[in-house]
Amino acid sequence: MSRAHNFSAGPATLPEPVLRQAQQEMLDWHGAGASIVELSHRGPEFMQVAAEAETDLRALLAIPDDYAVLFLAGGATTLQALIPLNFAAPGQAADYVVSGHWGKTAVKEARPYADVRIAASSEADGFRGIPARASWQLSEDAAYVHITANETIHGVEFRELPDVGAVPLVADFSSSIASEPLDIARFGLVYGGAQKNLGPAGISFAIVRRDLLERAGQPRAEILDYRAHAAKGSMLNTPPTWSWYLLGLTVRWMLEQGGVAEFARRNARKAALLYAAIDGSGGYYRNEVDPAARSRMNVPFFLHDAALDQPFLAAAKGAGLIGLKGHRALGGMRASLYNAMPEAGVQALADFMADFRQRHG
Amino acid sequence: MSRAHNFSAGPATLPEPVLRQAQQEMLDWHGAGASIVELSHRGPEFMQVAAEAETDLRALLAIPDDYAVLFLAGGATTLQALIPLNFAAPGQAADYVVSGHWGKTAVKEARPYADVRIAASSEADGFRGIPARASWQLSEDAAYVHITANETIHGVEFRELPDVGAVPLVADFSSSIASEPLDIARFGLVYGGAQKNLGPAGISFAIVRRDLLERAGQPRAEILDYRAHAAKGSMLNTPPTWSWYLLGLTVRWMLEQGGVAEFARRNARKAALLYAAIDGSGGYYRNEVDPAARSRMNVPFFLHDAALDQPFLAAAKGAGLIGLKGHRALGGMRASLYNAMPEAGVQALADFMADFRQRHG
Repeated sequence: MSRAHNFSAGPATLPEPVLRQAQQEMLDWHGAGASIVELSHRGPEFMQVAAEAETDLRALLAIPDDYAVLFLAGGATTLQALIPLNFAAPGQAADYVVSGHWGKTAVKEARPYADVRIAASSEADGFRGIPARASWQLSEDAAYVHITANETIHGVEFRELPDVGAVPLVADFSSSIASEPLDIARFGLVYGGAQKNLGPAGISFAIVRRDLLERAGQPRAEILDYRAHAAKGSMLNTPPTWSWYLLGLTVRWMLEQGGVAEFARRNARKAALLYAAIDGSGGYYRNEVDPAARSRMNVPFFLHDAALDQPFLAAAKGAGLIGLKGHRALGGMRASLYNAMPEAGVQALADFMADFRQRHG
Repeated sequence: MSRAHNFSAGPATLPEPVLRQAQQEMLDWHGAGASIVELSHRGPEFMQVAAEAETDLRALLAIPDDYAVLFLAGGATTLQALIPLNFAAPGQAADYVVSGHWGKTAVKEARPYADVRIAASSEADGFRGIPARASWQLSEDAAYVHITANETIHGVEFRELPDVGAVPLVADFSSSIASEPLDIARFGLVYGGAQKNLGPAGISFAIVRRDLLERAGQPRAEILDYRAHAAKGSMLNTPPTWSWYLLGLTVRWMLEQGGVAEFARRNARKAALLYAAIDGSGGYYRNEVDPAARSRMNVPFFLHDAALDQPFLAAAKGAGLIGLKGHRALGGMRASLYNAMPEAGVQALADFMADFRQRHG
């Protein structure tokens, strides 16, 4: 097959120019005589790649100087365990607002290390919305307040940043980082896995206000200590070099495309197009999320008859549209519309959905 | 430059056929319509890649069925922190035999979680040998005995496996796994980062006797729990998919080349060739390691005059020989001779060393 439109939720579609550059450089990076994947992380070639990736990410996200940027091995789940270890005293309260599957994961990973309190949850509602800020039960002594900015599985997104006062706001942005302008200064920590909007799986990012790195946290090994990683420029040990390299290429591509302001416009148009295809189908397709909390990145939807799921997926694949199967927790379909998904891909999906509905009406 | 002979200690040279295959498949994996780096880890394509990598690694290393194989994000240092968390009770003794830098790292990462005891150390000797087994002070109540099979920086290698009785032997094999046949059944745990003999940075392996997974260990987040990873086939969260894929290609290449028996022969010849070039230089070059403990994988060596280091490195690069700068802890030079380093590369290095000595005698 030639390249399909890939709606996978992550690992996810990457910009074709990024893949072409990685392909072209695979045997010999810039005349070094070896692939970047073969070169020492301490050598001048990779040090340059690493530094440029950080510089470019700082430019892309307008990260203030009083924030450190860490690139760490693994994904967001590992960070979820390390957040209380690094930023909460033993047994200290930490407030969690749960708006979907990944908020629950964050709670589960934190429980061994903090007095985790559910400040609000939309679980009783099937995670179809964001708990209203007025309903949150925040603790005055909390180490931080944790939210999941965008829920990849449930397709629910914070469209307004909550005010939590002086307590640091910690947010999992795995699936919406760089999708629109973001005021980093509102947060204590913005973190996530890279494998949706920023690059490949195997590397995660943590944008952390430097004063939080001074917190004692809890006894832990050095390799689990963010301050130690920050002191060594994320090279406390051998980092995931190729993933870091590909992240750098992806961030550079975003800057060249016009940055987050441009992607915010594209993403708004893409989401509007797909939600209109669903809402205008007379119930043939449906999305169950509160319209005020609908995710621009991940759009779960259901056919009116689940018996059509397999035919839909098979016909979609035949039309060059892949990665549409919904997460097993919800069933149905899911289309992820990350930055690297072109508007033409979403138009092709909307056209296919209309055509499928006609043929299987 | 065309492809050089790359003696980097890790990330390290990879087989050119592996890189060519990754290059060829970069835009579209086997007709899937997307790169393997873009495909869901839960989809049939990556599940196949992951399963084949495990099957091939089991074949390559003759891993018995009562051992689980884990592929984990990050490197050996992370595993070093998680070993006591998973396999030692809080405050339980753990014996460490320290024969170089990485043995010290293992001790440092374990200290927060166990009563770490230095059973033996060759540090007073500058890590130029392996402490004699008869000198080890082992604890009867130890959770395990930890060794570093091959010290990447100091160039010291266990050439005989120690008998430690009924206590599980845990070994960091980051830089010598798959370099020769290994009796896995002698170990409780064989672990390491992949970025020397098995593939790229960003993924590590743990070959663990299944009964050890039943140990309670210490309170910890699920993402830090090996039993949880084993139960989910190393897909507790999104794994480092591209690194796993490249590891699989590298392991497959090793099988096609004849497996570990063949690499043992090649590696013995390569090491003999380089040590002969050093020892036969009349002191122009020197390696300071006890000959009985010399590493076949990493050969640190010094020129008789450190003022020649920079000219040596510059001339070597001009001759297409890169990655020879020694680790900053030792200075001098280091040549790493992993499986993907061809004998022709080592011959070229030996020839260059003789020529340099003639020109700068």
